[in-house]
Amino acid sequence: MTSQKEPQEGHSTSTKVTGPSSWSKVSCPCCTSTQIEPLVLIQLAESVQPITKQWIMSVIAAPVKAGGAQLLVHPGEDMKGDMIVVAAPRCTLHRVTEELGLCKTYQDGDMKAFSFEDRDNFCNIDDTQQFLTLAERQFIVKHEMDLMKALEDQRIPGIPAPAGKLKARESILQKLEKAGLIRSITPLHDQERLADLGKQWYSQKSLWGQPLDYIHNYFGGTIAYYFSFLDFYTLSLFPPAILGIFITFFLPSANFSTAIETDSNASSKISDDDHLSVSSYMVQAVFSMLWSTIFMELWKRRSASLSYHWGTFNLAEQFQEPRPGFHGEIGTNPVTGRLEPLFPDWKRKMRMGLVSVPVVGFFLGLVILGMAGFYFCERLVSSWHKESGSYFTAPLLYLPSIAHIVYTNVLGNVYRNVALKLTEAENHREESSFDYHHTTKVLVFTFFNNFAVLFHIAFFKEDMPLLRKRLSSLLIVTQVVGQFTEVVVPFLVDRFLTSANRNLKEDDPEVDHLQAQGSLPAFPGLFAEYIELLVQFGYLSLFSCVYPLTAPLLLLNNLTEIRTDAYKLCKLFNKPFSAPVANLGVWQLAFEVLSFISVISNCWLLLLSPRVKEWTQEAGLSSSQVIVIAVIVEHVLLIVKMILAFIIPDEPDWLQVKREQIEYNSMQALKKQRIKSTRVDGKLQKAKMGE
Amino acid sequence: MTSQKEPQEGHSTSTKVTGPSSWSKVSCPCCTSTQIEPLVLIQLAESVQPITKQWIMSVIAAPVKAGGAQLLVHPGEDMKGDMIVVAAPRCTLHRVTEELGLCKTYQDGDMKAFSFEDRDNFCNIDDTQQFLTLAERQFIVKHEMDLMKALEDQRIPGIPAPAGKLKARESILQKLEKAGLIRSITPLHDQERLADLGKQWYSQKSLWGQPLDYIHNYFGGTIAYYFSFLDFYTLSLFPPAILGIFITFFLPSANFSTAIETDSNASSKISDDDHLSVSSYMVQAVFSMLWSTIFMELWKRRSASLSYHWGTFNLAEQFQEPRPGFHGEIGTNPVTGRLEPLFPDWKRKMRMGLVSVPVVGFFLGLVILGMAGFYFCERLVSSWHKESGSYFTAPLLYLPSIAHIVYTNVLGNVYRNVALKLTEAENHREESSFDYHHTTKVLVFTFFNNFAVLFHIAFFKEDMPLLRKRLSSLLIVTQVVGQFTEVVVPFLVDRFLTSANRNLKEDDPEVDHLQAQGSLPAFPGLFAEYIELLVQFGYLSLFSCVYPLTAPLLLLNNLTEIRTDAYKLCKLFNKPFSAPVANLGVWQLAFEVLSFISVISNCWLLLLSPRVKEWTQEAGLSSSQVIVIAVIVEHVLLIVKMILAFIIPDEPDWLQVKREQIEYNSMQALKKQRIKSTRVDGKLQKAKMGE
Repeated sequence: MTSQKEPQEGHSTSTKVTGPSSWSKVSCPCCTSTQIEPLVLIQLAESVQPITKQWIMSVIAAPVKAGGAQLLVHPGEDMKGDMIVVAAPRCTLHRVTEELGLCKTYQDGDMKAFSFEDRDNFCNIDDTQQFLTLAERQFIVKHEMDLMKALEDQRIPGIPAPAGKLKARESILQKLEKAGLIRSITPLHDQERLADLGKQWYSQKSLWGQPLDYIHNYFGGTIAYYFSFLDFYTLSLFPPAILGIFITFFLPSANFSTAIETDSNASSKISDDDHLSVSSYMVQAVFSMLWSTIFMELWKRRSASLSYHWGTFNLAEQFQEPRPGFHGEIGTNPVTGRLEPLFPDWKRKMRMGLVSVPVVGFFLGLVILGMAGFYFCERLVSSWHKESGSYFTAPLLYLPSIAHIVYTNVLGNVYRNVALKLTEAENHREESSFDYHHTTKVLVFTFFNNFAVLFHIAFFKEDMPLLRKRLSSLLIVTQVVGQFTEVVVPFLVDRFLTSANRNLKEDDPEVDHLQAQGSLPAFPGLFAEYIELLVQFGYLSLFSCVYPLTAPLLLLNNLTEIRTDAYKLCKLFNKPFSAPVANLGVWQLAFEVLSFISVISNCWLLLLSPRVKEWTQEAGLSSSQVIVIAVIVEHVLLIVKMILAFIIPDEPDWLQVKREQIEYNSMQALKKQRIKSTRVDGKLQKAKMGE
Repeated sequence: MTSQKEPQEGHSTSTKVTGPSSWSKVSCPCCTSTQIEPLVLIQLAESVQPITKQWIMSVIAAPVKAGGAQLLVHPGEDMKGDMIVVAAPRCTLHRVTEELGLCKTYQDGDMKAFSFEDRDNFCNIDDTQQFLTLAERQFIVKHEMDLMKALEDQRIPGIPAPAGKLKARESILQKLEKAGLIRSITPLHDQERLADLGKQWYSQKSLWGQPLDYIHNYFGGTIAYYFSFLDFYTLSLFPPAILGIFITFFLPSANFSTAIETDSNASSKISDDDHLSVSSYMVQAVFSMLWSTIFMELWKRRSASLSYHWGTFNLAEQFQEPRPGFHGEIGTNPVTGRLEPLFPDWKRKMRMGLVSVPVVGFFLGLVILGMAGFYFCERLVSSWHKESGSYFTAPLLYLPSIAHIVYTNVLGNVYRNVALKLTEAENHREESSFDYHHTTKVLVFTFFNNFAVLFHIAFFKEDMPLLRKRLSSLLIVTQVVGQFTEVVVPFLVDRFLTSANRNLKEDDPEVDHLQAQGSLPAFPGLFAEYIELLVQFGYLSLFSCVYPLTAPLLLLNNLTEIRTDAYKLCKLFNKPFSAPVANLGVWQLAFEVLSFISVISNCWLLLLSPRVKEWTQEAGLSSSQVIVIAVIVEHVLLIVKMILAFIIPDEPDWLQVKREQIEYNSMQALKKQRIKSTRVDGKLQKAKMGE
């Protein structure tokens, strides 16, 4: 029997209760507390009537059995206002912590999956703000609200029939959002801690280090993982950056080949230089290949350690609810036995195979078409100019480039919409599967759009100086443009346009402070940030042997990127919800695929470099012999890469022991529980017989 | 509360009790039964004294808490005899079934992980022989005996000090085997069912079909999986066999190229033939690649279905005991917290990296050396013969071949011992990890030893007719030799040498029948069988485009192989123990790696074939262009292979639903149990307070 201590209450009573109205009552006695922390702000549409607001609040406060979320609600200023503030009672927080499978520090100092029954043996269990991070508490509120369900057909009070009709088992929050009753749901900032975090994060003087634990605590899993990865990646850029600088400035022959071409020295000296440059070229290519492999493997270990440290390494698999856009015929889910919309898998596969794949292929074709058109027009225009050269035809020379840039951008934008529509048409049941297919579609196109030109220059034109020029300009231009559009523009908009709303003083009513939080734009998510990193990583691992300064430039970029991303997240957007996660998810795979392609790319770049060609000609090898050698080298390198990936364990040893420990203990506990439950059954029977 | 019905007893009372002595008594009342089935026979060394035998029997019968196996024992003829017959009480069988995670048919017809508490809802629970297969019952007996442990330092009675000393936590069975007290432990045959199985299996008239369920029932998991794979593989050989026959006999140009070379027709006709043969060559290569991929993917699905059908798809991960040969310094196991020998992982890795890998590399080098020596000697001898041709030098021509064959065989035998020694020196803790590393070592060498010569002929000598000749002779010779040594020899030995022991009649005492079972040689395991299949599969997927008759020949071989393997297993060896498994284990991986290599091999074989060369020359392609095309084709094919492997799900849809169902239900059950256990706690407290 576990002894059921009454949890101790009331350490600090910093009453944060807002306005004259009061919080809803708690149903369970153990959770009554004088200190209620507002976690999430729901902003309603202005048209919402008090009766509807009242109903929404009552649903949120209702117990889970009644289809509610068992949370605490507060009407803000008064019942007429357009906001609802939501908090969470201790019971709900603990229950969901167990359901999610979050791990917390046990009394023996190890991380252990939280168990409600065994809660008294976890550290800090009495202080909820210590026990769960702010981001976790806010995520739990959102998670529970997402699960609110109508138990039977009913009407939303104050809303006319078609929009206000709720069917049995329909998700209430989805319905409210679809009907336009909810403008936004945002986790609330804690201004004091935000300022503190900002000081440690982007305002610090030192170039290095981010307060990752603090970020995880305040912003939550997905965001902390992004910044951890950015951190690790930037750190990993040092070795290639140093090598790149060394090759560029201390081995002059590896520099722009034009420099040598214009330099008409004795042939003996060139030959010497050539040998040198070939070897530096090879060093760079092989290094690049090894680096990308080891980087990914070490990141996996780092990621595993983080997930242990943050208690997410044992997350429970959730039987996810259907995502909002999912539709289908109502039927019995074969897994859960519940009535819900069903959509057959073969139909989805048909749509993927017969619609999505061809359409994506079509867009990839358009990219190539654009490229071909660009080269064609360029040749056409330059021949015109040569024939009838005048002041009027000179500006025409820029026309193809401009047209191509416009074309690429338009295509990119159109494709982004098409990818979203296609994935929606595939009608995925789970949010995670939707994200996966959507991301994959965007990724394939982005790869193509960014790298097709470079591959074309490298392997068809075989024009290394052009590749080098193109790469360097791309790196510098995207860096400048990226930083500008990502930060400077939102910063200026924020400063001069929207800040009027935020001229609040400390002594203004709390409600106004809350209101101000809703006024910022919604955080656009990390999609664009990851894509940016991925394209960077592509430039580096695919082509850096041509332009050794890639790594130093990227290092410079990332050191500022960390700061600007942090500033953006803290200041320029609403705080986003962020789920507890254990890894980068689909992005991990994308980086791994890229690092695989890099081996192949580096091999052939090496082969095609003019120096290697000269060198092999001198060595008396026929071109087909050279290619055969390259093929063998490529295959050997791929095998080395696979062996490397295989022998570096994905988890540090200590973590593996911990994991096995946890498995072993839970197995033992299960055995004990079985024995106990049979014994208890026996005792109960005896007790009954004794009555 | 689950209602605890008393299990019903005594359907059939076919008393199989052996001899005048009696079975040990059962400790728990629910297991008393008039029908005890002898499962396992332990043969002791002849020197074992009655007092020692008595002790061994008492340990086997002791409860698990006392370090025993909680089984039933019978002394055979009398206490002086050298055998112990072991049976299992119902309780032990049920408990271990749950521990192993075996799935059994639930009352609703689905398979479900067996739960002791919920046992009354499983089908056939009252009839143990229906509920568990014979092989499972026998495996459970072995499993429990393997777990017998000395609880404290003690002496084995009747054995002098050094060999008879048992340390605390030492495995008793391992000790007894090490001390030479146990000659063998064999599961007992059920002669009636064995005869019945044989009739359905190898004595049947029809060419097709094996009684796989019966095999699984009688022989158990690993063996049933081997025969299922053999079955599936043989069936899968039909498409390539048909294609091969078609190409050989209906497209005459694809036949031995010598036929065309001697045929000096008009060049126009040859050119026509060439085009045809190139295309048939390509068809065969591409088909081979696709076939090997699809075959592996479909087998995975088949394997998953079988594991559901046989109740092994949810096997519990076992915290395995250290294997017999494992040694190290006594310390606390960080996972289980038990005192046991420990061996640091880095030491093992050092041994692998610094000893095993170089030694294996050295042997691979010896293979190449042997090959080089063979070619060198052959050239030498033939030039001698040409110079001073006489009757005496003619037999010398065969010398290099003979020497090479002897060398290869000796090398293979030496290597087999070295691989075992190396793996033992790596000191793996778990049997499974030992098997994995041992198998990998043997596999790498076998690949090399079998395929190095073929690759050399194909890619260095580029001599396709020789490759074809070599392949066909290899196929036919290995087939004939293999069948002969595997079956005919043991059969003759069995018939004329050892059968004297087995001239038993029905009315001889049961003990003699038992004794006879121990007299056969131990089953050598499936290692050699799998290697044989793998080499076959290699010939087929790597080189079949050169010799299209490979598939039909293999098909013929396998149809007999099934029968001979079955006969061997049933008649010529002792019955082996066979663990419940859910897939082929390490062999699955080996086949997959081979099918990956086959893509690369087929591509380059295609390129090197003389016809393709002529053809490309006619088309005006330079040799380097041809190689570049081949590289592109290879990469595209590899990508197609990966996509194919990705889009064919590894499990059939229905199985995925079942699996999710089980996960969902166990999650729900866990939730309910938590609620129940807190309530029961409450009730108990109330009941106490009421007293």
